[in-house]
Amino acid sequence: MTSKMASCIFCKIIKGDIPCFKLFESDKTLAFLDINPLSRGHALVIPKFHGEKLTDIPDEDLTELLPVAKKLALATGAAEYNILQNNGAGAHQVVEHVHFHMIPKPNAQEGLGISWPQQPTDMDKLKALSEEIKSKM
Amino acid sequence: MTSKMASCIFCKIIKGDIPCFKLFESDKTLAFLDINPLSRGHALVIPKFHGEKLTDIPDEDLTELLPVAKKLALATGAAEYNILQNNGAGAHQVVEHVHFHMIPKPNAQEGLGISWPQQPTDMDKLKALSEEIKSKM
Repeated sequence: MTSKMASCIFCKIIKGDIPCFKLFESDKTLAFLDINPLSRGHALVIPKFHGEKLTDIPDEDLTELLPVAKKLALATGAAEYNILQNNGAGAHQVVEHVHFHMIPKPNAQEGLGISWPQQPTDMDKLKALSEEIKSKM
Repeated sequence: MTSKMASCIFCKIIKGDIPCFKLFESDKTLAFLDINPLSRGHALVIPKFHGEKLTDIPDEDLTELLPVAKKLALATGAAEYNILQNNGAGAHQVVEHVHFHMIPKPNAQEGLGISWPQQPTDMDKLKALSEEIKSKM
């Protein structure tokens, strides 16, 4: 265990050292209520594998997360909802262990608020960028 | 094919009737650049299975989406990024075919903007709610 894992609040929840309002658990995945919810039913789905960002998690620890998020959305009865996973403090990540938010959006006031600073479409730039990204996939 | 699929812009992209800046394709999954990006490298990952919301997609069509989002994040070289999937017009969904945004967050101005209208913690309410949700999982 690294010192980062030892101090990680989500690793402590996984180990049972800190309680949570557990909704689902399997070998690889844990889901529980966010105790500072944005709306009724706001829940978190996390891999038990400790990693700060999505890119730190092995593929085999990622495959169950969305099926569980789907089960949570169904069980809360949310008609509209957002799935959000933040990577890095600048991208609004607070706890440094990968977590997916399932946030019901019952009305304009509650749930996730989003701003969308869309950039102009530049087809030539996009074409060059797509070639660059593909070459690195 | 339903009429919803026939008119779906992402189903047309999957069929090749509308071009895209393709980054990845498999039997079940397609990834391409968002042509109205919030930041350089903003990409979409979609299941080929047509469904409006996450809850409409079979589990077996969900398992590859995050591994592909991870590959995209790595290939763009984004240090910080958000993974976002919106369900319903009230939750900011525009195209009615499930899509995951991988949005690099290079600085405060570009990329996804988030507001977080956190509600007070009410342990009794959360306990009752967790029992209710678990009973429906």
